[in-house]
Amino acid sequence: MNNFNFYNPTKIIFGRGQIASLQHEIPAGARVLITYGGGSIKKNGIFEQVTAALEHVTWTEFGGIEANPHFETCLRAVERIKAEQIDFLLAVGGGSVIDATKFIAAAARYQGDPWDIIATFGTAVTGALPLGCVLTLAATGSEMNPTAVVTRAETRDKLFFNSDHVRPKFSILDPRNTYSLPARQVGNGVVDSFVHVLEQYVTYPAGAKVQDRFAESLLSTIIEEGPKALQEPDNYDVRANLMWSATMALNGLLATGTPSDWASHLIGQELTGLYGLDHGQTLAIMMPAIWTYKLEQKREKLVQYGQRVWHIQETDPTLIATLAIERTREFFETLGVKTRLSDYGLDAKIIPEVIAKLHQHQFVQLGERGDITPEDAADILQLAL
Amino acid sequence: MNNFNFYNPTKIIFGRGQIASLQHEIPAGARVLITYGGGSIKKNGIFEQVTAALEHVTWTEFGGIEANPHFETCLRAVERIKAEQIDFLLAVGGGSVIDATKFIAAAARYQGDPWDIIATFGTAVTGALPLGCVLTLAATGSEMNPTAVVTRAETRDKLFFNSDHVRPKFSILDPRNTYSLPARQVGNGVVDSFVHVLEQYVTYPAGAKVQDRFAESLLSTIIEEGPKALQEPDNYDVRANLMWSATMALNGLLATGTPSDWASHLIGQELTGLYGLDHGQTLAIMMPAIWTYKLEQKREKLVQYGQRVWHIQETDPTLIATLAIERTREFFETLGVKTRLSDYGLDAKIIPEVIAKLHQHQFVQLGERGDITPEDAADILQLAL
Repeated sequence: MNNFNFYNPTKIIFGRGQIASLQHEIPAGARVLITYGGGSIKKNGIFEQVTAALEHVTWTEFGGIEANPHFETCLRAVERIKAEQIDFLLAVGGGSVIDATKFIAAAARYQGDPWDIIATFGTAVTGALPLGCVLTLAATGSEMNPTAVVTRAETRDKLFFNSDHVRPKFSILDPRNTYSLPARQVGNGVVDSFVHVLEQYVTYPAGAKVQDRFAESLLSTIIEEGPKALQEPDNYDVRANLMWSATMALNGLLATGTPSDWASHLIGQELTGLYGLDHGQTLAIMMPAIWTYKLEQKREKLVQYGQRVWHIQETDPTLIATLAIERTREFFETLGVKTRLSDYGLDAKIIPEVIAKLHQHQFVQLGERGDITPEDAADILQLAL
Repeated sequence: MNNFNFYNPTKIIFGRGQIASLQHEIPAGARVLITYGGGSIKKNGIFEQVTAALEHVTWTEFGGIEANPHFETCLRAVERIKAEQIDFLLAVGGGSVIDATKFIAAAARYQGDPWDIIATFGTAVTGALPLGCVLTLAATGSEMNPTAVVTRAETRDKLFFNSDHVRPKFSILDPRNTYSLPARQVGNGVVDSFVHVLEQYVTYPAGAKVQDRFAESLLSTIIEEGPKALQEPDNYDVRANLMWSATMALNGLLATGTPSDWASHLIGQELTGLYGLDHGQTLAIMMPAIWTYKLEQKREKLVQYGQRVWHIQETDPTLIATLAIERTREFFETLGVKTRLSDYGLDAKIIPEVIAKLHQHQFVQLGERGDITPEDAADILQLAL
């Protein structure tokens, strides 16, 4: 097991009716900005529940945060914060709204060019407005981690940053708030949380038995519950298990003492930045292709995954690994998320543009061994056509 | 899944050589009291590593904290703190030292009779000195939770309290610091961490798939690694997996959204308070007896445990449950921890005294359903003879 630090002070408030606890979690007299996305929270009753629990504060709202939130949109929120002396941010939404709110929280306290926050991967952040979350989508894990991903629309750059300063003070997870999501978002969310686990698991063995088994616990649960969420959208325990799996998948626990990959995410980000694919779609495309390209290096963990998670009974390691990749692809397809670039109307012509972006972003040593270059990525994208 | 809150801000610093990070974790200029037990840390090099990392602070020491730490000993430490204006506590040891240090931290800031802290189960605590830990034994999980158990020697009362104020700011876990432990402490520690998981798992089903599988992950790992720790005391990965399992077993994660039992602990505490049995010994005695007594109510989870953790292939649920209890008892015995009262020279004559203590402590509604009375406990103790 490798050395590690683990620190996660976000308070999770989970279950039916928990939005009411906002009255205890946000300090009395705070000046709150409620951030949200396309406005579905105004139709499904969530906004009403939130504001009913905010009688002890002054609040105002900032809606219209898009999926893959734009840097430019965030800057408009920062202007509002400065104009209205906001001192607490409440993100009500999924990963995009929470990520945007993290960036807004940091940018509101940053003196220089706010793009520095992204350009330094977060090391420039020295403070942030406090923020809390009301989660409405099980997917990104942003509700319990220090990471955010923001897109600069102008230059089509989708990039992440990390800072302990933007960890949510609290996150409220009521599984019922995910009942009314469209199937496409549910499918993407299940793929996203599943791939988060895999990025921290299908690497090489590090003697970390607890972390491996925790990863397998989440994978098995997501495999059982993911399809059910599409079939029985109002099944509380299904939604609860998916929601808790997604949070656990990316709160730092699985990464303790183990190597991580993240190549699917970093190449996938370029596909979203350049061509607007959903985040979950890019992962469903990239992960099987990367595994196929790196089968030899990843074989030992692919075999463990195939045996323990998919219960593959074959004996030849390469066959087990290959079947594990196939099962994974089939699982994504079952969720309605296609796994080939061609399924989204993309062909080999995109490859040079993606490679140029990887170079521009200095993502030139990807994967758990740092040995995936942009030129390898070109070969991987060929496998993903 | 039941509603829950999860909050755990303790920073874990895990791995080889991590004691050196004390220089960053304790504020410069602090006045530190190092608390420890019987003095083994002065023979095995741990004390030397600790003090080498404390050049930036003023430190003094308080040794001699006993197993099942005494209230009376803690009060002597509180006097030292007041006399020497100590403002940071550093516990170097296992669960007993950490528990004592938590109590000392709370008592040093408490105005009334310090026994109030225990008598109110911690609700009287409104503040505490900050504390950090260097862990030397994988067992209690105290390094990442808000709980402490203290014994009043005078009255033979062993009781716990909880307070967020005594959560460690950080805990340093270097698995090598457990290499030199005596076999008896290793065996007790393995039983303790294993039973912590079971107290939160063998209850009744609550639809919490992630929590169940996390519990099974820890149980399977402890079963594999526990005996190895006795056979290969210097095997780093064995010690690392046991250490991380013990921390994960009682940091709040398994209890999220699920019922908990704790009857083995609460009856077992009386056995330690009255007769001085090791904590792990009392658990190894009580848990099989409670399960046998409550087999019908616990059958569904005992079956799940028997199938998923012990891979029992039988089909009759009662038989699987019975075999699961047997396997558990055998596992404890394999670790050198006996599972009968008679193994420790105790017989049925103790029962009235234990029952009187349960009444005195108002532990009159134990177990996950609150239906184990002291009279049930008498029957359970009969089964444990």
